[in-house]
Formats: sequence, structure tokens, C-alpha cells
Amino acid sequence: MPETSPIRPTDDEARALARELISKARFGALGVLEPQTDMPMVSRISVSTTAQGIPLSLISDLSHHTQALKADARCSLLVGEPGSKGDPLTHPRITLQCEARFITRTDDTFATLRARYLSSHPKAQLYIDFADFNFVELRPGVAHLNGGFGKAFTLTPSDLGLAMD
Amino acid sequence: MPETSPIRPTDDEARALARELISKARFGALGVLEPQTDMPMVSRISVSTTAQGIPLSLISDLSHHTQALKADARCSLLVGEPGSKGDPLTHPRITLQCEARFITRTDDTFATLRARYLSSHPKAQLYIDFADFNFVELRPGVAHLNGGFGKAFTLTPSDLGLAMD
Repeated sequence: MPETSPIRPTDDEARALARELISKARFGALGVLEPQTDMPMVSRISVSTTAQGIPLSLISDLSHHTQALKADARCSLLVGEPGSKGDPLTHPRITLQCEARFITRTDDTFATLRARYLSSHPKAQLYIDFADFNFVELRPGVAHLNGGFGKAFTLTPSDLGLAMD
Repeated sequence: MPETSPIRPTDDEARALARELISKARFGALGVLEPQTDMPMVSRISVSTTAQGIPLSLISDLSHHTQALKADARCSLLVGEPGSKGDPLTHPRITLQCEARFITRTDDTFATLRARYLSSHPKAQLYIDFADFNFVELRPGVAHLNGGFGKAFTLTPSDLGLAMD
């Protein structure tokens, strides 16, 4: 970043906004590395959270992003959707730098996640039991919060209320 | 992709949907490579188009994504925003694999782009003349269109109506 870095010191208001953006997200934009080219590739995924508050998605083996995450678990998740009015750049959003961890249908925790996920995404009932769908936790490292112009913060998992093991 | 690849043969309906998603986009999710780590990083940017239909954004030198694009021009743009109702995964969207090309304030075409951009993003009047803001064309290569479940297509710049030089 240039010397005129606009990053502000993290405060409780920033932490609260970041947690709200994550807990309220229903979908987001996932960035992965395309296996053959190592180019970034962005696609839309559903977003929920685990009981611990870790972002969670339900993704299909048939998707480009699933194949990419299996080759390289490093990814990025953008959540915080603007409404249809006003300047979208003034709406708060957060970028999480993440590591993907798959929870497959044979894992002990799958049933618990299934029930939790359906409570936030009831329409997923239509495909949640398809064999090619599995859960993936998107475990955050550093996070970049943008609360609108001049309101940029760099947050840690601890700021997000997450104790990553 | 697995042998059961869900990619359909490209048809005129897919081409028309792709062009509509790009021409109507007001913002999108940009994926870049973080310079120090080569991790993907996704952030929100404004989106307009050039007169030729190439996606265009106005970005600040103070942003992570601008610094990243100056180090590596390869990027990805997701456009096609769902509304607030229904399953976001059934809403059409398109992922463009792009190369970024900056148009700075001293370029001959800046004034033309400035006028065009303000017609689609009038609120940018507040910051478009700040010295740290420049335009960037996101020049598409391959594109991945997802028109909803079971409606995946792989498109070329020609399918998008773009003749890339």
C-alpha cells in the first residue's frame, strides 16, 4: 500500500460490523485459483455459518470452484450485498482471506450442519441430498473490512470472534 | 471437470443473457492475485462499460485491488446480482476471466470515458476527479455463464460481442 494508507485502527464498531456482515450473509463471491492457469476466478456461492460462526457453503463437485478448492484450498470470500439503490461502493462489505476445509457426507458433523444450513437456506432442500454436494468451511485468516469511503480496516480472526485452530 | 460436465453447447439465448448481464451491471466482484502471497482476493468494484462493451471500472490507487492489478493484470469479474428474494443460486450470473488495462488521467480517451461513466454512475461525481482514481478496462477472455441450475455455458469474447485486439 502507498504511504497514504487509508487503513484505520480497529475498533469495536468495526468488529461488530464485520461480524454482522458475516452472520447475515446468504450468499457471496468466492475467489479461487484456477488449477491450470493459477488465475483468480470468482463465482457466486451460498453462505451460511457453522455454530462457531465460520462461513460455510454447500457446493457441488460439478462446479469449477469445487475442483479448484480441491487443488488449492486458499480462497477469498466477499460478503455484504448492497441494495438496489444508491452507490454500491458506499455499502459495507468484507473480504475474508480463507482456507477451505471440506465436510463430506460421511463426516460425523454433516447431519448437524445439514440441519443448520437448511434453517437459513430452506430452498436448498431441493438439492442438499444430491451426492455431488458437500459442505465447505471457509476458515478466515486476515479480513479486509470496507465500511464505505474512508472506512477501511484490517481485521484478525479474533476480531471476528473466531478462534481458528 | 468430471466426465459428467454440465456445460451446455453455446446458443443465442446464452449469448444474449451474457451480454445483458454485462451491460446492465452497476457493480461486481473483482478477483485479483495478492502480490505478496499470490492468494486470490475478492473485492467490490463499480462496473460500467466502454462504448465497445468492455467492462470498465473506476478504481483508486489506495485500494488493495489496484496495487494487485499493477503487479499482475490477470483478474476475474463476477456480475449479475440477485435480488433480495428467492435462492441466489438460481439467479443468472457470469464470471469473466480478464486482463486489466489501465486508462490514466493523462490518456487521450480519459475524458470520453469520464463522461460515459458519469452517465451510468452519477454519484461518482463526488470522487471521479480525485488524483488517485483511474479507469481500468477488464478485457475478457473466456467467460463462464451460469443461468441457474443446469444452465452452464463457456463463452468466448466473440460470443460476448467483443473483438479483443
